[in-house]
Amino acid sequence: MLSALKVKLTYSIKLNTIQALKLSELKQDELGQWRRTHYSYEVNVSLTGREVIVMGWVSTIRDHGNTQFIVVRDRYSDVQVVAKKSECTEQVFEQIRQLREHTTLAVRGKVRSQQKAANGAEVIPLELKIFSIAKKAAPFLVQSKTLSVGIDTRLNLRAVDLRRNVLQSVFHIRHTTLNTIRDFLVKQGFIEINTPKMIATATEGGATLFPIFYYDREAFLAQSPQLYKEQLTMAFENVFEIGPIFRAEPSRTNRHLSEATSIDVEQAFVDYNDIMSLLERMISHIVDSIKEKNSNDLDCLGLELPNINLPFPRHSYSNLINKLQAIGETIKWGDDLSPQIMKNLPDETMNAFYFITDWPTAVKPFYVKPKSVGSERLCESFDLMYRSLEISSGSTRINRKDDLLERMRKQGLNTQAFDYHLRVFDYGVPPHAGFGVGLERLLMALTAIENIRDVTLYPRDIDRLTP
Amino acid sequence: MLSALKVKLTYSIKLNTIQALKLSELKQDELGQWRRTHYSYEVNVSLTGREVIVMGWVSTIRDHGNTQFIVVRDRYSDVQVVAKKSECTEQVFEQIRQLREHTTLAVRGKVRSQQKAANGAEVIPLELKIFSIAKKAAPFLVQSKTLSVGIDTRLNLRAVDLRRNVLQSVFHIRHTTLNTIRDFLVKQGFIEINTPKMIATATEGGATLFPIFYYDREAFLAQSPQLYKEQLTMAFENVFEIGPIFRAEPSRTNRHLSEATSIDVEQAFVDYNDIMSLLERMISHIVDSIKEKNSNDLDCLGLELPNINLPFPRHSYSNLINKLQAIGETIKWGDDLSPQIMKNLPDETMNAFYFITDWPTAVKPFYVKPKSVGSERLCESFDLMYRSLEISSGSTRINRKDDLLERMRKQGLNTQAFDYHLRVFDYGVPPHAGFGVGLERLLMALTAIENIRDVTLYPRDIDRLTP
Repeated sequence: MLSALKVKLTYSIKLNTIQALKLSELKQDELGQWRRTHYSYEVNVSLTGREVIVMGWVSTIRDHGNTQFIVVRDRYSDVQVVAKKSECTEQVFEQIRQLREHTTLAVRGKVRSQQKAANGAEVIPLELKIFSIAKKAAPFLVQSKTLSVGIDTRLNLRAVDLRRNVLQSVFHIRHTTLNTIRDFLVKQGFIEINTPKMIATATEGGATLFPIFYYDREAFLAQSPQLYKEQLTMAFENVFEIGPIFRAEPSRTNRHLSEATSIDVEQAFVDYNDIMSLLERMISHIVDSIKEKNSNDLDCLGLELPNINLPFPRHSYSNLINKLQAIGETIKWGDDLSPQIMKNLPDETMNAFYFITDWPTAVKPFYVKPKSVGSERLCESFDLMYRSLEISSGSTRINRKDDLLERMRKQGLNTQAFDYHLRVFDYGVPPHAGFGVGLERLLMALTAIENIRDVTLYPRDIDRLTP
Repeated sequence: MLSALKVKLTYSIKLNTIQALKLSELKQDELGQWRRTHYSYEVNVSLTGREVIVMGWVSTIRDHGNTQFIVVRDRYSDVQVVAKKSECTEQVFEQIRQLREHTTLAVRGKVRSQQKAANGAEVIPLELKIFSIAKKAAPFLVQSKTLSVGIDTRLNLRAVDLRRNVLQSVFHIRHTTLNTIRDFLVKQGFIEINTPKMIATATEGGATLFPIFYYDREAFLAQSPQLYKEQLTMAFENVFEIGPIFRAEPSRTNRHLSEATSIDVEQAFVDYNDIMSLLERMISHIVDSIKEKNSNDLDCLGLELPNINLPFPRHSYSNLINKLQAIGETIKWGDDLSPQIMKNLPDETMNAFYFITDWPTAVKPFYVKPKSVGSERLCESFDLMYRSLEISSGSTRINRKDDLLERMRKQGLNTQAFDYHLRVFDYGVPPHAGFGVGLERLLMALTAIENIRDVTLYPRDIDRLTP
């Protein structure tokens, strides 16, 4: 048990050096000279008998009369604190007896081996510092493994809700996902960009735009960095941006947000086949990374991530229409493929990640490149799907001004409003292709969470603007 | 010269394997089966006599009659292409003769050692593929080392402007800066967050807010993630966000933007002294990283970054007021320290990075924690300065609801409008401290660029909403 104690406790309270404790007569709720004890993960030192300072919030309390058990949770783990009347001062015992869940505190105490405790160890309190008292009982239990409490109740106290293990795990996985994406793209020679979110013109039609007062003018919130990232391929070739996008979605669904995080990638001198290959390798890296770094979180969520086999299956749009018609669905070539209808396809290669390629040109935005002469009614485009959920959309883009103007006119767009964009096409825009991944959609696929709001820290939708 | 050729050319055109060239009868301006030749940086293989495909844009053209010199620039370097009438086909010679700067193309050709060329090598063209013809001459020279052309002319064609070496270097340094910040924070145990940009209530007063139509309601663009990042310390302890912030600045200066990139950091169980230490170590890491990874860019900008000595000098606000009064400035305790007045201080410790600490409580936002009893007119706050430029602002925050309410009332804020924020303070918000760094301000300090618009890809200000 001793080695388990060492490993688990060094993990749980993480310390470099035990700092000299200068305990002074400060107000009880101030940090003062108190600092959390830090061990490095690597130092294999037995903590038994050592004095430590644990800082965190009270996740459970058990009152056994002359013995009080509290669990202090910090971002590493849980630490059990045991106050026995016979082992601690009256003041400390009283303080602990009066605690309430969610109270944030520091405990200075001695470590003792304890097989029954979560980490094989417990802390005997010598002194407490209450930083912030919980004044109310939270309307949900932090221990609950499910998300069954009504989401609105939880979102109204989101920061408290986020203390729950299941959401902690979701956002640790989110962190790994973002890190892995950047690492992957930077290693592939991509440069990070940030483009304006306040824009003069709608990129892809004006139906779902949020208008802004921009000083004395009207402006809009960007639905995507599309045109900017395309322009920037002429200066930097390979670019990526991870940032917010804004869509005034009028619908109430479990897969739409008014504000989402988009992973936008654009590359010069490649086409949509190269970009699909880049995207599937990126997804594969993310899955590998999560398996490696988030095994505890996967356990907490009861998840086992599938092995990713590359390449992902590729289904052409036209083939899927044929298949759907063959099973009796009323759908015709040119229609969109809704999640509802996609669920009816019995193809087992569509039970994980797959691509739908070569969409009708008419259903895709003006900047998507039609296939070569004779096949222009199809375009060099793809959607990356996870089951019936759209994760990403990408394509080869048009890089010649005349072609772009023609497509804009066909879609009834006011080409003059795009002058600031079109004018750079007079100066040698390279062939390029790219994609945008909805981070929250990807997280739904990775974590098996069904409501997009639960993979978002503070979701925005037609009904919700706070917190 | 041969080894120089090897090193420089492998660097400049970067290839893994020479791909089989399947040249088919495609439209001249399509990518088709053509792909850029890639070598890895490490493979020390002489390219002399090898066939390569170079892709990029034409940065210079010299016409010597029977010999045409063009320089093709890609994101790695420049490659000289030499077309002699005696060495290439008539078609290729004619194509090259008709080129214009900024045209984007691919050149299939043979590598030859050439001491006079920039990389000690040149390419003899066998075939050209013109991707995108430049239809006009750009209103500025890409070779120009200065930014002297009027910024509005350049911003109107920003993507073309960004092809210039000096701006390429600035944005390579930006890329390194962002990467280093994330690496540093992740290693310190920070988790990445993204918080909403559409919000219901102003964080720090309403003077410089952009209003939005949020469906049927009024909302605002976030001036900072302040309240969200503070809340999230209760769930994740150490958090950071790198994202856009929006301020309807009415002024026209070289140091203000309407949309900027903010690096927001917040940490639980520490105070402003810990956070100043974290921030100065972060800056030191950034400088070290740029020196290591961007030496070419520093050369291009004619910059030598100073050695960073830690800790940065710390000057208290009150001491600076005394010093300013001593040199005859008309300033009184409680006034803000303007860049104009700061320039008059003769202190040489203020010639690089330094902190101004312990500001008057009254000039700082409501969430900044006053110092302990008896010194409440000062607060636990700091600004990080670079000469007279403010780079960052930070503080210990108030973590108790009653204290927060008191400060809000003193500042005349409507506490009800902050209900969604205040309510989480009933559940044990830990002591915490944090800072926000203006990325563009930091880049001005690092690159010695004087106009903040030039360290921003697509700047926004009171006059400019496009491109």
